[in-house]
Amino acid sequence: MHAPAGEPEDHHDIAHLLVSCHDRRGVIAAVAGTVAEAGGNILDAQQHADPGDGRFSMRLAFEEVRDAGAFEGALSSLASELGLRWRVRWPGPPPRIAILCSRETHCLADLMWRVSIGEVRAQVTRVISNHEDPGAMVRSFGFEFSYEPVSPETKPDQEARVLSTLQADGVELVVLARYMQVLSPRFVDAMPGRIINIHHSFLPAFAGARPYHQAYERGVKLIGATAHYVTEELDEGPIVAQQTTPVSHRDTVRDMVRKGRDLERVVLAHAVRMHLEDRVLLDGRRTIVFE
Amino acid sequence: MHAPAGEPEDHHDIAHLLVSCHDRRGVIAAVAGTVAEAGGNILDAQQHADPGDGRFSMRLAFEEVRDAGAFEGALSSLASELGLRWRVRWPGPPPRIAILCSRETHCLADLMWRVSIGEVRAQVTRVISNHEDPGAMVRSFGFEFSYEPVSPETKPDQEARVLSTLQADGVELVVLARYMQVLSPRFVDAMPGRIINIHHSFLPAFAGARPYHQAYERGVKLIGATAHYVTEELDEGPIVAQQTTPVSHRDTVRDMVRKGRDLERVVLAHAVRMHLEDRVLLDGRRTIVFE
Amino acid sequence: MHAPAGEPEDHHDIAHLLVSCHDRRGVIAAVAGTVAEAGGNILDAQQHADPGDGRFSMRLAFEEVRDAGAFEGALSSLASELGLRWRVRWPGPPPRIAILCSRETHCLADLMWRVSIGEVRAQVTRVISNHEDPGAMVRSFGFEFSYEPVSPETKPDQEARVLSTLQADGVELVVLARYMQVLSPRFVDAMPGRIINIHHSFLPAFAGARPYHQAYERGVKLIGATAHYVTEELDEGPIVAQQTTPVSHRDTVRDMVRKGRDLERVVLAHAVRMHLEDRVLLDGRRTIVFE
Amino acid sequence: MHAPAGEPEDHHDIAHLLVSCHDRRGVIAAVAGTVAEAGGNILDAQQHADPGDGRFSMRLAFEEVRDAGAFEGALSSLASELGLRWRVRWPGPPPRIAILCSRETHCLADLMWRVSIGEVRAQVTRVISNHEDPGAMVRSFGFEFSYEPVSPETKPDQEARVLSTLQADGVELVVLARYMQVLSPRFVDAMPGRIINIHHSFLPAFAGARPYHQAYERGVKLIGATAHYVTEELDEGPIVAQQTTPVSHRDTVRDMVRKGRDLERVVLAHAVRMHLEDRVLLDGRRTIVFE
Repeated sequence: MHAPAGEPEDHHDIAHLLVSCHDRRGVIAAVAGTVAEAGGNILDAQQHADPGDGRFSMRLAFEEVRDAGAFEGALSSLASELGLRWRVRWPGPPPRIAILCSRETHCLADLMWRVSIGEVRAQVTRVISNHEDPGAMVRSFGFEFSYEPVSPETKPDQEARVLSTLQADGVELVVLARYMQVLSPRFVDAMPGRIINIHHSFLPAFAGARPYHQAYERGVKLIGATAHYVTEELDEGPIVAQQTTPVSHRDTVRDMVRKGRDLERVVLAHAVRMHLEDRVLLDGRRTIVFE
Repeated sequence: MHAPAGEPEDHHDIAHLLVSCHDRRGVIAAVAGTVAEAGGNILDAQQHADPGDGRFSMRLAFEEVRDAGAFEGALSSLASELGLRWRVRWPGPPPRIAILCSRETHCLADLMWRVSIGEVRAQVTRVISNHEDPGAMVRSFGFEFSYEPVSPETKPDQEARVLSTLQADGVELVVLARYMQVLSPRFVDAMPGRIINIHHSFLPAFAGARPYHQAYERGVKLIGATAHYVTEELDEGPIVAQQTTPVSHRDTVRDMVRKGRDLERVVLAHAVRMHLEDRVLLDGRRTIVFE
Repeated sequence: MHAPAGEPEDHHDIAHLLVSCHDRRGVIAAVAGTVAEAGGNILDAQQHADPGDGRFSMRLAFEEVRDAGAFEGALSSLASELGLRWRVRWPGPPPRIAILCSRETHCLADLMWRVSIGEVRAQVTRVISNHEDPGAMVRSFGFEFSYEPVSPETKPDQEARVLSTLQADGVELVVLARYMQVLSPRFVDAMPGRIINIHHSFLPAFAGARPYHQAYERGVKLIGATAHYVTEELDEGPIVAQQTTPVSHRDTVRDMVRKGRDLERVVLAHAVRMHLEDRVLLDGRRTIVFE
Repeated sequence: MHAPAGEPEDHHDIAHLLVSCHDRRGVIAAVAGTVAEAGGNILDAQQHADPGDGRFSMRLAFEEVRDAGAFEGALSSLASELGLRWRVRWPGPPPRIAILCSRETHCLADLMWRVSIGEVRAQVTRVISNHEDPGAMVRSFGFEFSYEPVSPETKPDQEARVLSTLQADGVELVVLARYMQVLSPRFVDAMPGRIINIHHSFLPAFAGARPYHQAYERGVKLIGATAHYVTEELDEGPIVAQQTTPVSHRDTVRDMVRKGRDLERVVLAHAVRMHLEDRVLLDGRRTIVFE
C-alpha cells in the first residue's frame, strides 16, 4: 500500500504547476479543466487567496499528461485570457544545486546526507567554501569541492569566479549553509529568488553578526533559526521556514550554539526541500509555502 | 485591509462544500466548474488524495452563488455521474451545540468564553452536567444549564432524557468538556460523528481512567491531550487534534494536571472550531482536517 | 500519595529563601547548614553559577524552622561574613497583586480564573482599567474593580491615583494584562522589579505597537508572546517567559490575534506564578528562573 | 568571557558526584560541607526530593578537590552515617561507548558526528552491526567497525561474542542506534542501566514493531521518539528523553519516517549526552534527569 519506508519517493512521473493571478473567479475550474482535457490526473492541489491584496496562488501536482507541448499551449492561451502567471516543471532529473559554506559544517553535512539518502531530491553539483577544511568530508560524500578563499580585496574577483562556476554548472538553487560572507548586490541580482540562507536567529530578532551572543545578552527564553531568500538588504529577505527551542539561564552562549545547530540544519533542509519541490511562491516580502 | 483584530469574522455570506469520492480524475475541474457556472466565487479550496486507498476529499469555501436550489440540483447530477458524496452548508445562523461536563470546568469555561467573543462561531443551546456546581458560571455567560445527575441505576433514564433534550434543542454537535461518564452505545449511535470528547492523554497512550497518574507512574517526559470523535469503543474514536507539553521528574501528578489543563482546553477548542467550520472529514478510523 | 488533583497545594508551612553573592565557594554548605541548624527541612533547592560573571544564586524551599527570628539572625551574620544578599518569605497569606488591563480581557479573565481555582496563589486586591467594560466580569469573580480613564492630559493625575491605590492596597506585584498604556518612569520607579507585562510578540522582534501587524508584514512563520518586567525603556525589561506558535501564509492578522491570545495568557500566567513563588531573580537585563 | 562557540567544553578539571538517600534532612549541608572541607568548589548543584516516596537525589559538579582519596574516605563515612548511596566520576578521559545499529544509519551517523565535534564527550570504541553496509561510513569517521550478522539460530552465540567484545573494550554505555534486534535477558542483565535504545514512537503508544505504520493506521496528529534504558521487558524500560512533532492527514507512512528521523537522532543524542554527563538517576521505572 505504501512505499517502503526510507526509500526516496519516485518523482519521475509527476509534474508541478504553479499559477498566480489577481482575480480568482473561475480560475480553479479553468486550470483544473485544462489539466483534465490533456488527460492529466491531479494528485495534489493547493490554493491560497490572500484576503489582503486578493492575489490568488495555486500549486498542482499531476501525472499522465500525454502531450506537454499541447498542454503548455493551452495553458498559454488561458493565461493570456485570465491574466495568469505560471510555470511548470515536467518530470526529469533532480534539480541542480550548489552549497556554499565556511568553517561550520553541521548544515553542510546534514544537507549532503539528506541528498544522499534521497530525502532531498537534488543533484549537488559542487560545494564551494572559503575554507579548505570541509573538502575531505565533501569528497567522502562523492561531491565536487571548490576552495575559494576571500578577503575584502579579492571579494569582487572571488564572487565573479564563483558566479561563473555556478552558471557553468547550470545551478538552479544556491544554498548558503552557514556561509559567513555577505554577498554583493551584483551576486544576489544574478540569482533572484534562487539563494537560500540560514540565519541562526529568529529573524527579525538579532539580525546581523553573533546572534547567539545577542540572544544571551538580551536574556531571551527561546532561540531560533530562520531560512530565507537572500536579497540585497541583509537578513531582510522573504522567510521560508523558522523554528525555535527553549533556553534558560543555565544555557551559556556555547549551549545556545549547540542547541542552535539542531535547529539550523532542520530548518535549512526543510526550506531547501520546499523550494526544490516547487512549493514556495514569493509574494512581495512574504512567502506562500504549500507544505 | 484586514478586519479589526478581535472581532469575529463575518461568515454570513460564505458557504462550505465538502466532497469525497473514490476516483478523482477531473473531479476538481467538474466541481469548481459547477460553482463557477452558478456565479460563485471560490475563496478557499483544499483537496486531499489518500495515496493508500485512493479516496479523494475536497473542501470549498465560496460566496455569491445566486440560486442555492439550482446549484444543489447541478451538484446532484454531477454527484450521480461521478459517484460523489457531498454536503453543503449555506450561510445562516451559527451551528447549535450542547456542552456536557462534570465537575472540572476549565474546558467548559474556556469554550463558553471563546463562543462569547466569537472565536468559536456557535450557539450554545445548553450546558448539561451531572453536578450542580457549574450552574452559576454557565448562567453568568447567559447560557441555559441543566442538572442531570446520574448513577449506574439511573443511567439509562438519564441518557434518554439528555438525548431527547439534545434532539429537541436541534443540536448539531455535542461537546464532552471533561464529562467523566462513559456514554452507552445507544447514545453514541444516535449522534454518529457528532460527539467530540477531550481525553487528557496523548492517545493511544494511557487510555482509560486517571491518565496523568498512569503517565506519572510510567515516567514519560511529555504529557498530551487528545480531542476525538466518540465511538462505541472507548477512547478509540477518530482523532481530530492532539498536543503535548514537556514534563520532568520535578512534576508531580498535580503539576501534570495543571499543565494538562492548558493543553486540554486549547486542543478541545481547536477541534470544535474545526468541526463547526466543516473542516473535518471522517475517513474510517482517521480524520482529514483541512485547517 | 499525591494530593488530590486540581486542589491548590498547601503552602502554609513552606518558606522560600533566595540568596545571591559573587563568590560561591562554601556558600551552599553554609546556607544549607544554617537551615539544618535551625531544625529546617529543605524540600527543594536550586542553584545557578553564572560562568560569565561568576555570580551565584540559590533558592531554597524549606519547612519546620522553629524560630524565624533566630534563623534570620544567623543568616544575617552569615551574609555579612560571605557577602550574601538574601530575602526570605515565611508561610503566610497569599501575596497581594493588582491587575491592570484595557479592553482586551483574555489575559485578565484567564488570570482571575487561575487565581480562583488556586493555580496561581495570590490575592487579587483590585483590577484597574481605563475602560469600564471589564467591570462586570471582574465583579462576577468577586474582585474589586476600579475604572480609571486616562488621556494624555490626565495621565499624570491618573497614574498618581493608581499608584496611591496600589500602595494603599499593599500590593506586591502589578500585572499588566494587556494594559495598552505606557507607564511613566515615575510609576515604574515606584515599583522596581514588581511590574510584569505581557507583550504580544517574541521580543526583541516587533517591539512597540501592533506587533501582529508587523509580524504579518514581515512574513514570519512563528508568532510569540513575551512576559517581562517593566523598566523605563519600553519593551526592554528583563524577560521572564516566552513562547512561540507556528503561523503560515494562510493566517491573517486576525488569525494571528486569535492564536496569540492562547500564547499570551499562558505565558503571562506562567510568569506571574514564577514571580509569586519566588522563583525569579533579576541579573542585570536577564532573569534566573528556578522552575 | 565565554569559551569560543563550537569548541568542546573543557571537562578535564570537573568531577561529578551523584548522591541519593531516603531521608534528606541535613544532607545538602553535609555533602556540600564535605566538598568544601576538601577544598572543592561547587560549580553546579541540583537536587530532587520526590514528594511521593520521599527519596532524595543530588548531583554536584565541582573542581579543585586536592585529595581524591581523602575526599572519598570522608564521603564513605558520611554515607554510612546518613544512609547515602553515591558515586563520583573524577576528571579523566572521555567515557567509552559502543554503538549497535542495523541498516538505518541516521542515528548512527548523527551520533558519530556529535562525538567527532566534541558535542558528546565520548570515546567510541566500536560500532557493531548485523549488516555490513554501515562499515564504510563508520571507518570514514575513524572508528572501528565489527560486522556481527545474526539469525534466530545464531543469536545466542552472536550475543555472547558481542558481549565479550564490549567487555574487552571496557565499554561503559551501549547505544542502540536503531538496532532492530531484541536483546536477550542474559545480555540485558549483563549491563544493567547501561544500554540506551531509541524507539521510534512516543512510548507507551505504539510499542513493538512498525510504530509509524501503527501511528498512521490510528490517525494520530503527532508522532514521537523515545530514548529509554533497556530492560528485560521490551519497550518498558525507564524513559530518558522524548519528543513529538505534528503530522496530518497529508503525511504518509513515508513522511512520518522522514519526520521521525529528525526526532530520533535528536532525542537519542540528548539521552546519551545526559547519561555520559552523569545527569541521569534511575528511580524504579522512572528517571531523574538533571539537565
